[in-house]
Amino acid sequence: MRNKVYVTGSRPDLRVPFAEVPLSDGSAPVRLYDTSGPATPSPVRRAWIDERGPGTNVTQLHYARRGITTPEMEFAAIREGLPPALVREEIAAGRAILPANVNHPESEPMVIGSRFLVKVNANIGTSAVTSTVDEEVAKLTWATRWGADTVMDLSTGRRIRETREAILRHSAVPIGTVPLYEALEKVGGDPVKLSWEVFRDTVIEQAEQGVDYMTVHAGVRLAHVPLAAERITGIVSRGGSIMAAWCLAHHEESFLYTHFAELCEIFARYDVSFSLGDGLRPGSVADANDAAQFAELRTLGELTSIAWEHDVQVMIEGPGHVPMHKIKENVDLQQEWCHEAPFYTLGPLTTDIAPAYDHITSAIGAAMIAMYGTAMLCYVTPKEHLGLPDRDDVKAGVIAYKIAAHAADLAKGHPTAREWDDALSRARFEFRWEDQFNLSLDPETARAYHDETLPAAPAKTAHFCSMCGPKFCSMRISHELKEYAAQGMAAKSEEFVASGGKVYLPVVPR
Amino acid sequence: MRNKVYVTGSRPDLRVPFAEVPLSDGSAPVRLYDTSGPATPSPVRRAWIDERGPGTNVTQLHYARRGITTPEMEFAAIREGLPPALVREEIAAGRAILPANVNHPESEPMVIGSRFLVKVNANIGTSAVTSTVDEEVAKLTWATRWGADTVMDLSTGRRIRETREAILRHSAVPIGTVPLYEALEKVGGDPVKLSWEVFRDTVIEQAEQGVDYMTVHAGVRLAHVPLAAERITGIVSRGGSIMAAWCLAHHEESFLYTHFAELCEIFARYDVSFSLGDGLRPGSVADANDAAQFAELRTLGELTSIAWEHDVQVMIEGPGHVPMHKIKENVDLQQEWCHEAPFYTLGPLTTDIAPAYDHITSAIGAAMIAMYGTAMLCYVTPKEHLGLPDRDDVKAGVIAYKIAAHAADLAKGHPTAREWDDALSRARFEFRWEDQFNLSLDPETARAYHDETLPAAPAKTAHFCSMCGPKFCSMRISHELKEYAAQGMAAKSEEFVASGGKVYLPVVPR
Repeated sequence: MRNKVYVTGSRPDLRVPFAEVPLSDGSAPVRLYDTSGPATPSPVRRAWIDERGPGTNVTQLHYARRGITTPEMEFAAIREGLPPALVREEIAAGRAILPANVNHPESEPMVIGSRFLVKVNANIGTSAVTSTVDEEVAKLTWATRWGADTVMDLSTGRRIRETREAILRHSAVPIGTVPLYEALEKVGGDPVKLSWEVFRDTVIEQAEQGVDYMTVHAGVRLAHVPLAAERITGIVSRGGSIMAAWCLAHHEESFLYTHFAELCEIFARYDVSFSLGDGLRPGSVADANDAAQFAELRTLGELTSIAWEHDVQVMIEGPGHVPMHKIKENVDLQQEWCHEAPFYTLGPLTTDIAPAYDHITSAIGAAMIAMYGTAMLCYVTPKEHLGLPDRDDVKAGVIAYKIAAHAADLAKGHPTAREWDDALSRARFEFRWEDQFNLSLDPETARAYHDETLPAAPAKTAHFCSMCGPKFCSMRISHELKEYAAQGMAAKSEEFVASGGKVYLPVVPR
Repeated sequence: MRNKVYVTGSRPDLRVPFAEVPLSDGSAPVRLYDTSGPATPSPVRRAWIDERGPGTNVTQLHYARRGITTPEMEFAAIREGLPPALVREEIAAGRAILPANVNHPESEPMVIGSRFLVKVNANIGTSAVTSTVDEEVAKLTWATRWGADTVMDLSTGRRIRETREAILRHSAVPIGTVPLYEALEKVGGDPVKLSWEVFRDTVIEQAEQGVDYMTVHAGVRLAHVPLAAERITGIVSRGGSIMAAWCLAHHEESFLYTHFAELCEIFARYDVSFSLGDGLRPGSVADANDAAQFAELRTLGELTSIAWEHDVQVMIEGPGHVPMHKIKENVDLQQEWCHEAPFYTLGPLTTDIAPAYDHITSAIGAAMIAMYGTAMLCYVTPKEHLGLPDRDDVKAGVIAYKIAAHAADLAKGHPTAREWDDALSRARFEFRWEDQFNLSLDPETARAYHDETLPAAPAKTAHFCSMCGPKFCSMRISHELKEYAAQGMAAKSEEFVASGGKVYLPVVPR
């Protein structure tokens, strides 16, 4: 059981949600970060946006650089358990972003940066082959229920705009898109027919709808494309391959690169954040950390500086498929070349051999890359490389990535991270089964697994479980040892022997 | 489809199994390490053992130190794709073990050491509360089918001996046990009544049956026990808690410690390998790398030296629950204090918050600790902390750990590791779907996931998949780019435009 509670900030309309887990031993409930959003979508940010008034630059970076702590920053800070000033400073320095399009007032503010909790993005979206608008909205709700911090709508095929509108109006988390996909639809699917004008108009339409961040593959420059020709898996990013095709067909520099400053001006008016796409990311461990990937990364660093000149927020996308020993280099170079802008990586998958389990191959890489400083992780589902994720896959992907993110929070020493683990471990040691289930990332499944072998209600309070049975339980023995130690090690061993009968008395008959 | 093939070594009865995956593009089939064993168990090692004759010391370490390359060493070397001399040298140096009880002739030799492929152990076994002998044998077959390199029979409750006999006679992989569990059954479940004599007799009985390695918690010394008293989760190892209870009750040094040399003499007669148990391993991230854990580890180093004086093979067990930033220290200290004996770790779990997903929380830690040099990983299933694993859990645990092990093989640069990834990635890039499935760690599931969205047979040869649909496929665009690059970057862009129609022509109607 979890209760939704709100912590009120410096103004009455600043109410920050938490999922509160009551504990059966009378100790203080544990408050967990809550991404699930209100039952009915509500424009929580409307008043804050209106108070600031319209302007040619309404970005959180713009305000942060002027020393203004917006309600959005305070909201995000309360969620993190950190000072609002830290959020403002990190945004001002470009080390964090707070994606918050002024036309998406339904979003509950959150911050993405290496000093903060590691965030998880879930990709959803229709494709030409499968799925409907309603299914995608259901996936959004489902993904945020399990902890997705942002959602990207990667719809292709028909009804891109309608799907996006439905998602935005139902979403309490920031929504990202890849506008190139819709632009390509407009030109009949032929990348060669793309143009800056078509792209620009698409971006403006999406910004008007309220998209909070957009992937822009402006780092795929003409000169980079041949660098990918000898790879085992070529260009695996859709956006990257589309832009590569355009550059080669026209033998011209990418219009995304040449028009980047104009794009910044548009983004500044809505506070759309850049997610600078890694169009040349490796699609296999063989292609990791190669010349194509790093040439693009250097370009993304240049573009970051341009965006910052416009007070536009930026994060940088990263790979992909990377063997473990090459992961750290990705973060180190990204941080150096991109001036510490937040890193946002897909996985990476640490091996190519396990299609159907790439949520696991990539959770390994994701946990590591987040420990090294990546701010947000784009999930990978079990269907990666094989099909579009259904409801179960979305959950499996989000859960695997919440694990990776939290493991990294622990490794980085986020001040609020350990409390959760310790509360659960105490519940485990004290056989408070219901507390253990309620504190779990997935209470339903934890409870169901326990019940498979010991379904009876008394087992929920039993001081043992099905792994060892009542006689061998090491936890029970440990409790006796703890009491024994409390009496002092010098106490006579006979006392322990005398009390030993109690320890090993079966709680249920064998 | 995979074919079982055999590579014959220096003698006709030395036939090493591989799983061979034929490829549809006419290139050489890929040979994968095969743990599944023959359809009918066969005493493959009988002749080799008989030829050497009985002796007071029949260990692989004994032979290796004398420069003898046994058939077992050659067999293991062929599996690894490495020279037999390297296997012999690593065993002689104590950096690797080849667990091979002379009374378990059914086992196909394998080697555990940081220079070799990272191995995976699967735990099975009956408990007082659940499961039967037949179920456990089925789990053995199932676990090795998916790639378990060794299996530990952790049975408690009734019929321990009968279960173990059935497992040994059906097993082509080395079998490990924790003899303390059976010894405890013999004394009615009361640790205080345990004695060296009961333990010794149990070890001899199990060695006679053919157990290849035994966990012995000889590092839980009397003086270490109080170090665990202030932990959040106390002592979570069953063996550790049993020995701690004995030490405190008698206020005496552990009989496992005081009789260790006698144990070595027994082990030497059968070639049982030590798996020196980590009875004080941490059971929560809060307790990781603490004084209790490291005091025991130092003792395991002392015991390693004693075992080696008897030419007895040794590996060292490790934790448990360890946050990512504390993982490397575990390997570094283990390698230093235990003189580079192979490390064999349970996970570690990198966070405590995800019961029901601890195969994932721990696959992250397992991959990392293996990259740092751990030689074998003990799997964790989704049921960890909640119940005993069933068939599905065993598979999920083995697969997650094969991923972790292989990711580490790649990171460490094992000479045969990358071939598998590259073959699969080439198949993926060339849309050879059947090759991709057959090369997968779990071909059935990969095929099933693909078929959920694109079940028709033509989709198996289609040059796209359900993620992007036919129009946006980046892989297809990449192929065109590759051809384009092959023609030289100077070639006119018009040619690309002219050929572009072919690229985007839908393969199936939208």
